Amino acid sequence: MSRFQNKIELFDSTLRDGAQGEGISFSVLDKIKIVQLLDEIGVDYVEAGNPGSNPKDLEFFREISNLSLKKVKLVAFGATRRRNIDVTEDANLASLIQAGTDYVSIFGKSWDFQVTDIIRTTLEENLAMIRDTIGYMVSQGKGVIFDAEHFYDGYIEHREYALETVLEAARAGAQSIALCDTRGGTIPSIIADATREVVDLLESDYPDLIIGIHTHNDISCAEASSLLAVEAGARQVQGTFIGFGERCGNANLATIIPSLQLKLGFDVLTPEELSRLTYTSHAIAEISNISIPHGTAYIGRSAFTHKGGMHIDGVSKNPKAFEHIAPEDVGNERRFLTSEVSGRSTILKQIQKYAPDLDKNAPQTTHIIDKLKTLEMEGYQFEGAESSFELVIAKELGKYTPFFSLDHYRTLGEMPPTGDAETSHTAVVKVFVNGQSAIEAAQGDGPVHALDKALRGVLETFYPCLAQIRLTDYKVRVLDSMHASAAKVRVLIETSEEEMSWSTMGVSTDIIEASWLALVDSIEYKLMKEGVIPASDHTKGE
Amino acid sequence: MSRFQNKIELFDSTLRDGAQGEGISFSVLDKIKIVQLLDEIGVDYVEAGNPGSNPKDLEFFREISNLSLKKVKLVAFGATRRRNIDVTEDANLASLIQAGTDYVSIFGKSWDFQVTDIIRTTLEENLAMIRDTIGYMVSQGKGVIFDAEHFYDGYIEHREYALETVLEAARAGAQSIALCDTRGGTIPSIIADATREVVDLLESDYPDLIIGIHTHNDISCAEASSLLAVEAGARQVQGTFIGFGERCGNANLATIIPSLQLKLGFDVLTPEELSRLTYTSHAIAEISNISIPHGTAYIGRSAFTHKGGMHIDGVSKNPKAFEHIAPEDVGNERRFLTSEVSGRSTILKQIQKYAPDLDKNAPQTTHIIDKLKTLEMEGYQFEGAESSFELVIAKELGKYTPFFSLDHYRTLGEMPPTGDAETSHTAVVKVFVNGQSAIEAAQGDGPVHALDKALRGVLETFYPCLAQIRLTDYKVRVLDSMHASAAKVRVLIETSEEEMSWSTMGVSTDIIEASWLALVDSIEYKLMKEGVIPASDHTKGE
Repeated sequence: MSRFQNKIELFDSTLRDGAQGEGISFSVLDKIKIVQLLDEIGVDYVEAGNPGSNPKDLEFFREISNLSLKKVKLVAFGATRRRNIDVTEDANLASLIQAGTDYVSIFGKSWDFQVTDIIRTTLEENLAMIRDTIGYMVSQGKGVIFDAEHFYDGYIEHREYALETVLEAARAGAQSIALCDTRGGTIPSIIADATREVVDLLESDYPDLIIGIHTHNDISCAEASSLLAVEAGARQVQGTFIGFGERCGNANLATIIPSLQLKLGFDVLTPEELSRLTYTSHAIAEISNISIPHGTAYIGRSAFTHKGGMHIDGVSKNPKAFEHIAPEDVGNERRFLTSEVSGRSTILKQIQKYAPDLDKNAPQTTHIIDKLKTLEMEGYQFEGAESSFELVIAKELGKYTPFFSLDHYRTLGEMPPTGDAETSHTAVVKVFVNGQSAIEAAQGDGPVHALDKALRGVLETFYPCLAQIRLTDYKVRVLDSMHASAAKVRVLIETSEEEMSWSTMGVSTDIIEASWLALVDSIEYKLMKEGVIPASDHTKGE
Repeated sequence: MSRFQNKIELFDSTLRDGAQGEGISFSVLDKIKIVQLLDEIGVDYVEAGNPGSNPKDLEFFREISNLSLKKVKLVAFGATRRRNIDVTEDANLASLIQAGTDYVSIFGKSWDFQVTDIIRTTLEENLAMIRDTIGYMVSQGKGVIFDAEHFYDGYIEHREYALETVLEAARAGAQSIALCDTRGGTIPSIIADATREVVDLLESDYPDLIIGIHTHNDISCAEASSLLAVEAGARQVQGTFIGFGERCGNANLATIIPSLQLKLGFDVLTPEELSRLTYTSHAIAEISNISIPHGTAYIGRSAFTHKGGMHIDGVSKNPKAFEHIAPEDVGNERRFLTSEVSGRSTILKQIQKYAPDLDKNAPQTTHIIDKLKTLEMEGYQFEGAESSFELVIAKELGKYTPFFSLDHYRTLGEMPPTGDAETSHTAVVKVFVNGQSAIEAAQGDGPVHALDKALRGVLETFYPCLAQIRLTDYKVRVLDSMHASAAKVRVLIETSEEEMSWSTMGVSTDIIEASWLALVDSIEYKLMKEGVIPASDHTKGE
């Protein structure tokens, strides 16, 4: 039985339950990027869509089937069959099969109130719906995860029936059964007791069955309840990677994983995978266009940040004094707010990725770290923009020669557009390259679009390889949004050429300038990687 | 013994432990306002400063002594005496007495490692420090709360010594002893077991002693561990009101209180006080200049917000289907998001908020729903922009008359800025109001900032009430970011005036135009709410 194994299955629902979070909306490309990140960090199951209720998800499942994944098993999600029909007549189940995944998660009701008052059928028919649907999916060769929706609420109000639904799913052949606290309001001690009862009930008859835990954060206990359920015998943990989801969100896998592994001794990720935790979380946040609150356990920017003098003193004597784990274990870093001695070794590790011969005592290392700190204070966040990071290092090491110099750019917008102009924005860019000047104008759908076209246009004359690249992603994040329209913005762009893509960043109070900086980095990075020999002189030549 | 009472003491440390949070800094006036808010909602103890380590706190204690409070007992915080000196020679203890509070909290070490390696004294001297300090404070007439710092870490590594420190505090006359998870890393089940052991150890010899729980959120379990400790016999809960504090913050009292009261049945606040919870939390957040994440349990903006169609349908049948408590009980409210996944009945409910006499069969209802759907297809998402939503309804019902018409706007940006211009962006806006034309130019940090200033400038002449409003939030979301710099963007702005604030939205491929649309909605909404009579004619008058 699951209770005796030390391995925990991670089941991520960022793309399904997470997409129910307020303000979250994923494109197909966003979803693919998130699956890749989850695969790299070693998640077992990824619940990636609900093809029955959202036809766009079928497109995603088609796209993703071309991708090779090292570990992740994709799961499509859907309800038990509708009441009083045959499974073969249910259009949602047909869509579910059409998704083509090896695994499906089927949710059904475990709370009698939901059966009688919400889906409005009999308790017997609900059991039949669970039995028929799981049986049908098993007959179609699918591995079935049963989500016992509202299990804990059902357990509190009508214990026998809740347990009966779980037994029905086990009999019908589910490979795992996730006990769900769908409303997120169950007290942790009850979650622990109820989970233990289910494990006790099933372990002798269903020795291979895995019990899972699926919690929501409506009383701020989602992570603790997940840990308690595992201590009670659950061996699959469902959640979303940084915790977003309907209402107060789902259990945050990023903050459960290290507790399971480092504190309770379960086998979850390899140490190398675990050290990607902070990076992976922030990358998913960038794609989702949300920010991770600084105080988030393990992965937040302040998680190992010390402000109080006594704490700084204690940590300086021995980090264990005020740190419950080593920040490096989860890829995070220590910061002291009152002194600037933070995270040197962490930054060094990243620098050495690009300049392997630099050691921590080299004067260039100090230079680069100082530069990075200044940029971070200005609002740069290099997790999503490795190419800008690499350029900073190259520039600081003197390994970079500029490819052009800017004389000026101008943007002009008008509403309504004058005359017969199709679009209302024009940009003009003038540069110097090797003593020559060049100027180009372009129109676009907005100032950034116009500027992008003008900049690439004017440089293509000198560097023809730029003709192949194209912008494939553009994101804007307002930093410190309390300053409203005078706030700083961070622009993140992704540029692609055939199979390759790279990300760069710009920060400014002026969104045009922030976009300009990211565009310039993108072009400079491309030319540097291409080995293009820069012209030697970009001063005014005429 | 405390275990048999139903009353929970609330001990708030927002002004002391909370002030250790990154980015938090309180003025004396801020602190006074927060004490008043905590008093109004019915907190028992407020730990308001550490006069020994922070002399400014003495000023605050002087100021606050003039205030009349209905319930709150003020507490000054300080360490046990320094090693190897007499209590009467300790300057910090002298400051603590000087604060003039009836209650003091004294923290001492319960983890042998902290004694030997950090404060570097003997285990015996540490016990003497606890004994002497508490005894001295009791002799000075103070009620003493002993904070057993690092109690749970000590319990895990050297159980007998940890328990000995707690016994020493009880013998010396502490009225309550708070068991602290200072590093925030202890697993909830261990907190439960260790707390139960302390309660068992002390209950017969110290029948009036209250055991408290003080947790931090470093493994995202602070609230759950507090609940488990109460179930194990603790009757004082320490935390900060919205959870901020050193590193990942303290236990969030705002999310613990309703669980204790509504779910575990303890006596914490009156129902009227509890209904102030959301308001009090947001008021403290405003004073502290931080934002409460929307997904925060009980008090967050999304805590009772439904997006998925099935959830909306369920809640419409019976709120209990997907809500674990009634939002009104904690002063929060239910919201249905008007996104693509929500059905006609949801949209109708929202329309009826503004037009109560419309039923679902009225032709205007169909009109409005069609209009909303069109706008949603264009990228509008009204979940964050109720005021734009309300304007759409007013316009469709013919209840809206325009306040001005736009002749044109122009924006001009240049880099580097020409001449001695401080900023590089200029905007010009020309409008017609009641036959008169007006034009205004402004400079700003970016094109949107300049446009915002020019638009409000040109309209203030006609509508002086606009002089009071200010932009307080600005967010940008790139939709379908695959189209990169030619993608659509959605701009969401928040405008405020004194206590009131409203949110509006604009969508366009041009970020300037999207911002313009949101700015115009914001101004139109203000004028409509204000009951300003619009001028009748905005065509060109000259």
